[in-house]
Amino acid sequence: MRGYIFIRHGESNINVEKVLSDDVDHNTLTDTGEKQAERTGEQLTGLKFDGIISSPIKRAYDTANIISNYVGLDVKIDDRLREVYLGNANGHNINEFLDTLYPNSHITGKVRDSLGMETWEHLQERVKACMDDYKGKYIFVSHSDPIRAIASYYMGLSEGESFGMAIKNASMTVIARSPLKLLSLGAINLDDKIKSIFS
Amino acid sequence: MRGYIFIRHGESNINVEKVLSDDVDHNTLTDTGEKQAERTGEQLTGLKFDGIISSPIKRAYDTANIISNYVGLDVKIDDRLREVYLGNANGHNINEFLDTLYPNSHITGKVRDSLGMETWEHLQERVKACMDDYKGKYIFVSHSDPIRAIASYYMGLSEGESFGMAIKNASMTVIARSPLKLLSLGAINLDDKIKSIFS
Repeated sequence: MRGYIFIRHGESNINVEKVLSDDVDHNTLTDTGEKQAERTGEQLTGLKFDGIISSPIKRAYDTANIISNYVGLDVKIDDRLREVYLGNANGHNINEFLDTLYPNSHITGKVRDSLGMETWEHLQERVKACMDDYKGKYIFVSHSDPIRAIASYYMGLSEGESFGMAIKNASMTVIARSPLKLLSLGAINLDDKIKSIFS
Repeated sequence: MRGYIFIRHGESNINVEKVLSDDVDHNTLTDTGEKQAERTGEQLTGLKFDGIISSPIKRAYDTANIISNYVGLDVKIDDRLREVYLGNANGHNINEFLDTLYPNSHITGKVRDSLGMETWEHLQERVKACMDDYKGKYIFVSHSDPIRAIASYYMGLSEGESFGMAIKNASMTVIARSPLKLLSLGAINLDDKIKSIFS
């Protein structure tokens, strides 16, 4: 049986500032973000995985390294788990691009296209391709949009139809079983049913 | 075919203050909340429904009345769409009850029980019972927790496993088709596929 626990990176400076960034090296976890990663790592202690795969972007890679201390595996980087390609939105405050009635939400559809951002479908395809190259039980450390995209794929919902997803920092989204299905969306606790898959 | 568009009330004063309340009369929509309700109403213009059913709580009922102007139906109240029963959490700031690493998120599990709040399962059952009494195409105006509860039921996920849902003010969560399934989670736009169900 295959199983994947997608973990969003812990809180980083750009989350606090509400800035969008797909830069690899510039941004770091806050103290809260490090604690969130530790809390998630504690919950994974004693579970068994074939590997930890991370986005190359520093806030994710640093999260993956904190978690690796709890599960005893080295972190491997895979570029297909990196942040959505932000195009002309990179470095900007997210609220510059949103409907003023819904601040701090998600960029979608035509706005995404007009900014030259990666499409939702491309994002889904690259995350799926990454899963297909790691057939086993894995921790994948990534970012909000890639995790929302793969969750929406397994929910059978488009980007706009899954607008009500908010993947919190260091939360766990689980896709497992055969055939693969969504078993947990942005959870901050793992229940015994999920743990038994990774035992 | 049956179909339900669950709409969360627009922003109210207690959302801004982050206060929890299941009081019927005390709390009102903000100017932003009224505009959000109008924007949602505009998107429903021209669609056909058998009725608009609302929670009795003022922030929902006032949202339902704004929307009724766009779809030409009177609002009927059903108590089963009211806010989760908050028990000892009523009137308090939500952050009093949350893990400090995840402020402004959701109360779950043991904390919910310890506060004497309504259980997730009871919340699901009363919303399902309400749906069963309105067999047709309806707008249901309700609150965050009842909408998260019914969405989690149709996703087959428990409360904790669906923690990553954030149902925005005035957003639309659609359950339709035969058998009923979740077609949209907290959307702020309705796409043509959904509109065709209510045409």
